[in-house]
Amino acid sequence: MREMFDQELESVQERIVEIADTVFTVVSDAATALLEADVKSADRALVGAELVSEKALSLDELVIRTLALQAPVARDLRILVSTLRISASLERMGALASHIATIARFRFPDSAIPESLSDTFDEMARLDIRLCKKLIKLLKNTSVDLARSIQAADARVDELHREVFEVVLDKTWKEKAVHTVDVTLASRYFERIADHVVDISSKVSYLTTGDWSDNDLED
Amino acid sequence: MREMFDQELESVQERIVEIADTVFTVVSDAATALLEADVKSADRALVGAELVSEKALSLDELVIRTLALQAPVARDLRILVSTLRISASLERMGALASHIATIARFRFPDSAIPESLSDTFDEMARLDIRLCKKLIKLLKNTSVDLARSIQAADARVDELHREVFEVVLDKTWKEKAVHTVDVTLASRYFERIADHVVDISSKVSYLTTGDWSDNDLED
Repeated sequence: MREMFDQELESVQERIVEIADTVFTVVSDAATALLEADVKSADRALVGAELVSEKALSLDELVIRTLALQAPVARDLRILVSTLRISASLERMGALASHIATIARFRFPDSAIPESLSDTFDEMARLDIRLCKKLIKLLKNTSVDLARSIQAADARVDELHREVFEVVLDKTWKEKAVHTVDVTLASRYFERIADHVVDISSKVSYLTTGDWSDNDLED
Repeated sequence: MREMFDQELESVQERIVEIADTVFTVVSDAATALLEADVKSADRALVGAELVSEKALSLDELVIRTLALQAPVARDLRILVSTLRISASLERMGALASHIATIARFRFPDSAIPESLSDTFDEMARLDIRLCKKLIKLLKNTSVDLARSIQAADARVDELHREVFEVVLDKTWKEKAVHTVDVTLASRYFERIADHVVDISSKVSYLTTGDWSDNDLED
């Protein structure tokens, strides 16, 4: 019985990693779509986000069934509850990336990002992609250093998000409202994606180590 | 044993309703803050959002403890898992409302909403507040009619969200970029708050009726 349960937990972890892999591809495609006004990447991101959603749903079903059939306690229970939260965050990351892809698709063949902000968005997108890569690593193997570097990258994304507002609100900003809207939303989406990576990383150590005291359930 | 467990489930439901009550107040305060450039309401919304977050955390702890101690199955298990998802949505609603309050606070004593969009935001805010009220009702007592009217109100919020873009992207829009940014984000936040109410309402029937077949785990 215990052996079968351990196999189930392992399969849950593998499926979380698989979903995170798909999210990484979706975020990369969405970033390419926005930065290079590439409509094919945009379409791939939209399809990918649907796939993330289906995979997350099917994982949730497995987890709920496992909760019902195995009635796990302590560490096992916490792993399964964390999984439900992580899958919800991964699904949101896919949805946010699909919003970015939609902005790119809307402005095609033009670029949604004016020249004055292309460096800022380039760095923000690269950070988000790197965060997704770090997240996959962390989901495979918890590491305190990795969690720290995730927090540092997220802090930089927040900085860039504020930079976008500074540029847009400066007197020298002469772009049309359509660009103001696009960059405001796209920047917000990139920032939320990074937030989700931080949220997940704060839950992920429980997944692999089960080290989750009653005092800091949500740290 | 069963009796004690039923009491716990009842207390879980009461606490969800209590959090939804607080969210209602926070969204109302945030709407007043934005529409009337009222800094006191903004501050109340910010404090209220923190309170929502604390209450949601403490409810999650109770639910996880109940899962561990009672090892519930079937209907009871589904109720508890739904609760975790609903509390996460309620917390996000509070956070989104606090973002709206922050926009109002930032522009004080000016209004963040230009005259040309004040009717649109007025309706959007009123719909969000009404949605929160309907949600509380639904959490107390599931009703198909109520769920349907929630979906209708959400559809109207989506329409208004698109209307904001139409106004902003029209040739007649002469406001500064700061207003474009503010209304773009505020509109997005109102729209997401309404989305969360719909998400919760699709889960809430399980909470009160437990009528949740294996085939539509996420409907």
